[in-house]
Amino acid sequence: MDWMISRADLDANSSVPLYRQIFDHFASSIGSGSLSNGTRLPATRELAGQLGLNRTTVAAAYEMLETQGLISGHVGRGSFVCGGASAPDWGTLLGPTSVRSPAASTAGISFATSRPAEELFPLGEFRDTCREVSESGHLATLLQLGSPSGYEPLRRYLQAEAGATSAELLVTSGCQQALDLIARALLRPGDKVAVEDPVYPGLKNLFLRAGARLLGVPVGAAGIDLEALERVLATERPRLLAVTSNFQNPTGATLPLEARQAILRMAREHGAVLVENDIYGELRYSGEALPSIRQIDDTGNTILLRSFSKVAFPGLRVGWVVGPPPLIARLVELKHLTDLHTDQLSQAVLLRFAESGRLARHQRSIVEAGGVRLAAALEACREWLPRGTHFTHPSGGMNLWVRLPAPLDAGELLARAQQENVTYLPGGYFTVSHEQPGGLRLSFAGLQPAAIRQGIQILGGVFSRELERSQTMGQGPALAMV
Amino acid sequence: MDWMISRADLDANSSVPLYRQIFDHFASSIGSGSLSNGTRLPATRELAGQLGLNRTTVAAAYEMLETQGLISGHVGRGSFVCGGASAPDWGTLLGPTSVRSPAASTAGISFATSRPAEELFPLGEFRDTCREVSESGHLATLLQLGSPSGYEPLRRYLQAEAGATSAELLVTSGCQQALDLIARALLRPGDKVAVEDPVYPGLKNLFLRAGARLLGVPVGAAGIDLEALERVLATERPRLLAVTSNFQNPTGATLPLEARQAILRMAREHGAVLVENDIYGELRYSGEALPSIRQIDDTGNTILLRSFSKVAFPGLRVGWVVGPPPLIARLVELKHLTDLHTDQLSQAVLLRFAESGRLARHQRSIVEAGGVRLAAALEACREWLPRGTHFTHPSGGMNLWVRLPAPLDAGELLARAQQENVTYLPGGYFTVSHEQPGGLRLSFAGLQPAAIRQGIQILGGVFSRELERSQTMGQGPALAMV
Repeated sequence: MDWMISRADLDANSSVPLYRQIFDHFASSIGSGSLSNGTRLPATRELAGQLGLNRTTVAAAYEMLETQGLISGHVGRGSFVCGGASAPDWGTLLGPTSVRSPAASTAGISFATSRPAEELFPLGEFRDTCREVSESGHLATLLQLGSPSGYEPLRRYLQAEAGATSAELLVTSGCQQALDLIARALLRPGDKVAVEDPVYPGLKNLFLRAGARLLGVPVGAAGIDLEALERVLATERPRLLAVTSNFQNPTGATLPLEARQAILRMAREHGAVLVENDIYGELRYSGEALPSIRQIDDTGNTILLRSFSKVAFPGLRVGWVVGPPPLIARLVELKHLTDLHTDQLSQAVLLRFAESGRLARHQRSIVEAGGVRLAAALEACREWLPRGTHFTHPSGGMNLWVRLPAPLDAGELLARAQQENVTYLPGGYFTVSHEQPGGLRLSFAGLQPAAIRQGIQILGGVFSRELERSQTMGQGPALAMV
Repeated sequence: MDWMISRADLDANSSVPLYRQIFDHFASSIGSGSLSNGTRLPATRELAGQLGLNRTTVAAAYEMLETQGLISGHVGRGSFVCGGASAPDWGTLLGPTSVRSPAASTAGISFATSRPAEELFPLGEFRDTCREVSESGHLATLLQLGSPSGYEPLRRYLQAEAGATSAELLVTSGCQQALDLIARALLRPGDKVAVEDPVYPGLKNLFLRAGARLLGVPVGAAGIDLEALERVLATERPRLLAVTSNFQNPTGATLPLEARQAILRMAREHGAVLVENDIYGELRYSGEALPSIRQIDDTGNTILLRSFSKVAFPGLRVGWVVGPPPLIARLVELKHLTDLHTDQLSQAVLLRFAESGRLARHQRSIVEAGGVRLAAALEACREWLPRGTHFTHPSGGMNLWVRLPAPLDAGELLARAQQENVTYLPGGYFTVSHEQPGGLRLSFAGLQPAAIRQGIQILGGVFSRELERSQTMGQGPALAMV
């Protein structure tokens, strides 16, 4: 057993106790693989005799090895190395991560999250809704195991809203889960997916994780660029195309009716499955509502995603997907495998909230407030952001997209903004094929107008100072400013 | 354009209108591929001239082709075939399904679902809980977007319960989602996974869908067969091993303490990630509670799954997973991609239900009722099932496993049982590598004792008559009965 450890490996004069030296020696041999899995260690008495040590010293080392899962003792059989296995190498098992998450920030004014204003939640009406649901005769049914396709009364309500049959609708745990189920049902690693660029990071990261190859199609003021889209569809023939019809995240862009028709035609012509994400549609602050792409698709093949998250309460995870029956049937199957069914308490509460007229009332209130907030944001952008900055002018939703003049980099400037207690998400989270170093998203809906103005004023200061600095450093006015 | 359609293709004397004949001709050419995608159709005026027909007849045919998505008209460019693509071939896109779902049954007495008794739900206490949550000062926070790792107050409660740190715990949308996230994080197609045989179908189907190769290890009265397990681990070296510590679904078997220790040692020695499913553990009707495998694992590498579904309300989808920090970090990331976070209303309601002492009270009530129901089921099995039948004797949970004597086939006999208004799940849903034609699961917890007795008496009649029939048909007593 000399090859395992010998007296020469130990230093009696060290301040490190001998049991710990023995432990370290074995742990390192096991870690390096020179003591392989399954190797039997000498009995403590035997090793103690060989090393000229007290048996309790060796036993203490073995106990520590066992506690750390490096050896495993079997009564009557001895101790065996199990190091390579006992402590699973989680790094190797899990592989590298593909997700880049925004760094947490405790900024006072956060434009970083596309979510509704908490202070506008109608808490009294929500309480009444909860009480009505819990006093209803259906409570026991709600608490019992439910159906993967959704709570039947909510399904009927949503079907009537969507003009869909029972076979065309599935309730999901929010729109994010609808995207996930669609990716699972339709995408195999290597499949091409055409998406908006910039796009909602939850869609980008999810499809990347599914192994898809993303083809970013630029988004302009009128939504996705139709010429670029037709080129991508014709040359790359992606399996799936995902677009946002109203108030796209992050740009706020809305597709005009003709663009909806053109996208539908192109998807048909080039054989791409069309996914229409419309979770912001009810949040229109100006202009007329347009029919969804699914509504103008006679064939019923467009897949429409909707949710209560943006128009009511994101903490209650209820969305729905409307699509052709064969797809919905598969999504129901996957839903059942994934989490059995969507939470029924929240399904029932949201149904009651909607049926009682409270949802419509709440929507009117957030649409009114959202319009004021959007106007405040646009005005502040005009007033405070440096010359050469472009920003979108949405008619609704929660987000607008800013492009700073070169050479400003919104990712690099974030730390400085956060030092002044303002935060946002830089373009890198959203872009797919077309980098926009000057791009950033301002999510305004969750902030009150005064905070919006103050925040954008601070950002304007940070950006303007950097722009001046770069110009006085002799780089001259950037070309992109023209 | 004669190759597309000519006058000879049409029959002016047919009862089928001409526009419809033109439609049928093109639709069939497009369907068969002889008119390929992107082909330009002649203008209506041009085709009408060639066929000697009124232009409105041709236009009516084109309109019908367009409505059905077979051609697509572009103003100023003409009409193009888009048939192959416009109607996605969902069968090909989706591929075959891998899931076998139980046929719906309207049986009066259903032993088919492992779920709690609805009539034992403490509706009044649940109402009080909802009221307290909705009147709390945290309501607005609950309604707002939450954290992927769970609602912080619930996380603290569960951490204290589990003796886990914050980095070791994730709240999931039920235990099913925990299994799904684990499969996504750790399994690649072709990976081997050792599972109990028979096993919970939701685990079997999920892992199969992930492309895993399942290795079924037989489950006996004392849980998974340790000799068979060691053999499978040593020879097949699966990446993952999933076991149920208490009242396994479907057998009801519980692992003795020594078996838990042995499984832990084996998983370590053979390098398998160990998943411990313990969603039934609180439902013990007799005997002493045992420590979980995770509790006896000094290394913290065992992954423990738990849930409120079986001990409270399955309609509220809240479970949790406790595991080593690197794995939990990855699961949180996947959870965020999958559905952002678990429903917060239900997290808060279940936390309040637990903290108020109502959960403990409810558990005492269902444990008492469950014990009575189990006793009724065992007594009825002894009295009514035919000689030669084996059935398990669980100390808790919701299920017991019956093995009918050969040549009885529980799958074949199901239709007959359903004719007499009783249903159950036959073995095929649960078995992995070891078929058990005589196997079936009786889920007793959701039924009242009288229904349990009546249902098992009816099943006994169905099984006994078939056994007699098979014997009088000269097949003689089956060997397996001995």
